[in-house]
Parts: sequence; structure tokens; C-alpha cells
Amino acid sequence: MDTIPEIQTTRLISSSQVEGTPVYNLEREKLGTVDSVMIDRESGQVVYAVMAFGGFLGLGEKRHPMTWNTMIYDKQREGYVVSLSREELEGAPNMNAGAYGELADRDYEETVYTHYKAQPYWL
Amino acid sequence: MDTIPEIQTTRLISSSQVEGTPVYNLEREKLGTVDSVMIDRESGQVVYAVMAFGGFLGLGEKRHPMTWNTMIYDKQREGYVVSLSREELEGAPNMNAGAYGELADRDYEETVYTHYKAQPYWL
Repeated sequence: MDTIPEIQTTRLISSSQVEGTPVYNLEREKLGTVDSVMIDRESGQVVYAVMAFGGFLGLGEKRHPMTWNTMIYDKQREGYVVSLSREELEGAPNMNAGAYGELADRDYEETVYTHYKAQPYWL
Repeated sequence: MDTIPEIQTTRLISSSQVEGTPVYNLEREKLGTVDSVMIDRESGQVVYAVMAFGGFLGLGEKRHPMTWNTMIYDKQREGYVVSLSREELEGAPNMNAGAYGELADRDYEETVYTHYKAQPYWL
């Protein structure tokens, strides 16, 4: 019997493990951590990873919806890697901490998908 | 600006909101709560909702992987509803708390998909 929780199988990963995982860029800078993932209720598809970055103890922290496929898991670093500089991240669409309302706005979502050059989930 | 976190948009739902949500059956009995969701890394698809039930303060608690589409969100009750009696739930495939290793076993996964008569995500 397992004593240490195994929350990751070869192909599957638990949402509770994704949350809190660090996100790095190709220059090995830590950009932030994954706050949560947003799931499309209709299809069950994970659409965004919401990354928290900046601020201190939640103050001034920004959240940043990233298209799920933008992140690649790096087993060795135990974190996600994105091809994004810190400056590009700062210029990417973000949201105020706690305000997920933007994600109900299709125009806002389009800016996210355009930024990451991804195929919108609603098409 | 929002003061109360809005973690749910019309179409999208945050993993942090799914976690802890109660699960009821059609007889309005509370069966348990959603512990986490399991995501297929390859497709980004939510494959299972892992439900915790039974036990007390984590002791003797069982976890129960349910196919995501088995759960219907009931806005009024602020919980998921499944068409499953308590007896059927007790007979459904479950796992020991903290041991997600079973989900790496395709034979075990087949018992889950057979139980819920769902289309396996790996096919």
C-alpha cells in the first residue's frame, strides 16, 4: 500500500498537482506558479492554466490565463516550461487576482488565443 | 472591480471550484465531495472526477474515480448530481485514499469505464 500519495500516473495528472506547480521560461527564470486550471464544462477540456505571478502574499498579484498546450511539463525541473520571456509575459493578457469575470468575455478570450497563437476552444 | 472571487464563468469552471463540490444522487442523498480531477496530459481532457466518500477526517475514506461526463452540475443545489444509489457507489471501483497508482493500470481503468458505460479516453 502506498504511504506517499501518488497523484500522478504516467498519462494522467491530478488538478491538485498542477496547482502550485512553478512555471519557467527557456532562460530558466521562474515566471510564476499555476493557480488553477479552467475547464470547459461542455467538452471537459482544460482550456487555460491560470498562472499567478508578481506581487507578495497575494497583494498586487496578477493572474494570467495561458492556453493549456502552451505549457510543456519538464520532469527534471518539476515544473512547466513556456517559450516566453518575462517581458512577453508582462505584455500578455492578464486579469486582476480574484477576478475571473474576464474569461466570460469572448473578446478578452480572443486576445489570449491570439497572443498564444492557439486554436480557440469555442470553434 | 470584483471583491468576491468569481471563479466560474458561464462556460468555464475553475479546478479550484470543482474541488470540494458535493456530489448528490437522484434521491438527494449526499454521496461525497469531489477531491480533484484527473487530466489526460496528452489531450488536456478531464478524464475523471475523483470523489471522496465515507470515513472521518480522512480516516477510512475511499476515493472513487468517476468518468467526468457522469456528473451533471445542478446550479440550484450547487453540487453535482449522479444517477447512482449509495449501494451502487459502494460497488463501484474505488481506490485507497492517497493511492492514485491504480489509475496507471489500464485494466483497472477499464473496470471504471465499464461501470459508467463511458467511451474510454485512450481509444
